[in-house]
Amino acid sequence: MLVAKETELRRRYDVRWRLTGVATRRAGWVADPDGLSPLPILTGHWPPPQPCRDVREWLEKARADVLFEASSLDAQTGQPAVEHLKAALELGAHAITANKGPVVHAFRELTALAYEKKKKFLFEATVMDGVPIFSMFPLGLPATELRGFSGVLNSTTNVVLTEIEKGRSFDEAVKRAQALGVAETDPTADLDGWDAALKVAAVAIVLMGVPVKLEQVQRTGIRDLTEEKIRSVRAAGMRYKLVCRAERRGDTVVCTVQPELLLASDPLANLEGTSSAIRFDLDVFSLSIVEHNPGIEATAYGLLADFLRAVQP
Amino acid sequence: MLVAKETELRRRYDVRWRLTGVATRRAGWVADPDGLSPLPILTGHWPPPQPCRDVREWLEKARADVLFEASSLDAQTGQPAVEHLKAALELGAHAITANKGPVVHAFRELTALAYEKKKKFLFEATVMDGVPIFSMFPLGLPATELRGFSGVLNSTTNVVLTEIEKGRSFDEAVKRAQALGVAETDPTADLDGWDAALKVAAVAIVLMGVPVKLEQVQRTGIRDLTEEKIRSVRAAGMRYKLVCRAERRGDTVVCTVQPELLLASDPLANLEGTSSAIRFDLDVFSLSIVEHNPGIEATAYGLLADFLRAVQP
Repeated sequence: MLVAKETELRRRYDVRWRLTGVATRRAGWVADPDGLSPLPILTGHWPPPQPCRDVREWLEKARADVLFEASSLDAQTGQPAVEHLKAALELGAHAITANKGPVVHAFRELTALAYEKKKKFLFEATVMDGVPIFSMFPLGLPATELRGFSGVLNSTTNVVLTEIEKGRSFDEAVKRAQALGVAETDPTADLDGWDAALKVAAVAIVLMGVPVKLEQVQRTGIRDLTEEKIRSVRAAGMRYKLVCRAERRGDTVVCTVQPELLLASDPLANLEGTSSAIRFDLDVFSLSIVEHNPGIEATAYGLLADFLRAVQP
Repeated sequence: MLVAKETELRRRYDVRWRLTGVATRRAGWVADPDGLSPLPILTGHWPPPQPCRDVREWLEKARADVLFEASSLDAQTGQPAVEHLKAALELGAHAITANKGPVVHAFRELTALAYEKKKKFLFEATVMDGVPIFSMFPLGLPATELRGFSGVLNSTTNVVLTEIEKGRSFDEAVKRAQALGVAETDPTADLDGWDAALKVAAVAIVLMGVPVKLEQVQRTGIRDLTEEKIRSVRAAGMRYKLVCRAERRGDTVVCTVQPELLLASDPLANLEGTSSAIRFDLDVFSLSIVEHNPGIEATAYGLLADFLRAVQP
């Protein structure tokens, strides 16, 4: 995405970038403050890795101004993403993540650290990719009260339910989601609602200002829905979706994730494939945002948009 | 809305306001730089009007810092709204409007004047009330290319088509829309697609950067749809909606407004009452925004949000 948008970033925003480090579990710590050529890396030709004790040493070697964090993580702790982002901020780099974990487990800490270091902690790509869920609020919807929201935010369960409706078995549907690249090798986090629970908690924490804990989200996955049930309601013009809900009750926010039977006319029901949607109930009106069948570049765009928000004056 | 949000504006944004002028065709030019009490005015107890030659003299008497412009206008010329907004900007006041006309007929002129005077020309309330259509783009969706958009943006035709589906006649349906307060006494502008044409042109001009003229919008209203046609497709699971479309073709943008037959699963089809929706097709993904059955306070909120965007540092 950085390569694809390079000319536009320079012409429209006067923003230039240099890739000074890349790290993955497989390729190790690669760093060069003079700049790495992105195209060989994109085609799998990696420069040799450097010995680094940890993410901090790698960031120092790369002299990073911005970190894009997209590591695999432990949903229960948010690690190692939280440590990566902390290291970046402590070293004076903007910390941008596609991981929900740090938002759910360390929002206050990372936000305070970013404020102290005059850097940005940004995470737009964590929910609905590059769709401006978090960025819309401060400037787009000032002086509103978010009373609650509901959404279909997990792609895997959406694909699985759609495939079962079409006649596939549960196992075939899961394999199909994996083939599409939306489900992990171990689809537990999606099917049991953990991914959706992280998302509902992240949105509630950031936009409703309440420190919801992951274990406070009432969570039911889709494994107990039978194929017959899913298909029979479809014939009656209804659909099951794994629905996230958050509702303010006094000082707290009640968060739930569970399969719900929706009318076909519900904007949350008409989601195919990797599409997702969220409905915000504000004091002044309700609005829904739908993302239509995004590909992986939509997540990359979310990170890029955060990059621009971080570096622009 | 200013009264309802007064405490919040002060506490959350340190923004205070004083009402120094109100003008309507019926009540005349009311102005007092020391401040008018809004509550009597809201209950119909107007202070006596002052003799004023024009909007300029009234703004001067009121010593206005901000103008909220919501006069009735001529769709073909954008007047008198354009003159009101020009006068405000020339006198050093922010110009905020709920009128599409000035965006369609004088966007460049008013934007340039605002820039020169270091004031804001803002118009979020013109399309989908307070939903941040225009505000979302610069910061929420940076470095994107808007290739086109489609939407159901006119409430009156939406109400009329829904009422006909329910079994009412065309004339009864129009009366119902008038009773709901969404249709004007003369519903021509809505039924013949003028309101929708202004909206599609406004969005294309602002977000696609092309100076579309109102007469370039290919426009067909809903009068030629028969009641039988509207009801028969409904039974088949489809719906007619007055759909706005804009599509980039080289240097130009082709804009159309016409009744279209939509599948029930289309997010644009599932709109009842005053609801509206827009789908943006960007290079990185497509997203839709739906506003659910807003009331008149949603427009007021759009003006208030622009006020905050104008006065905040």
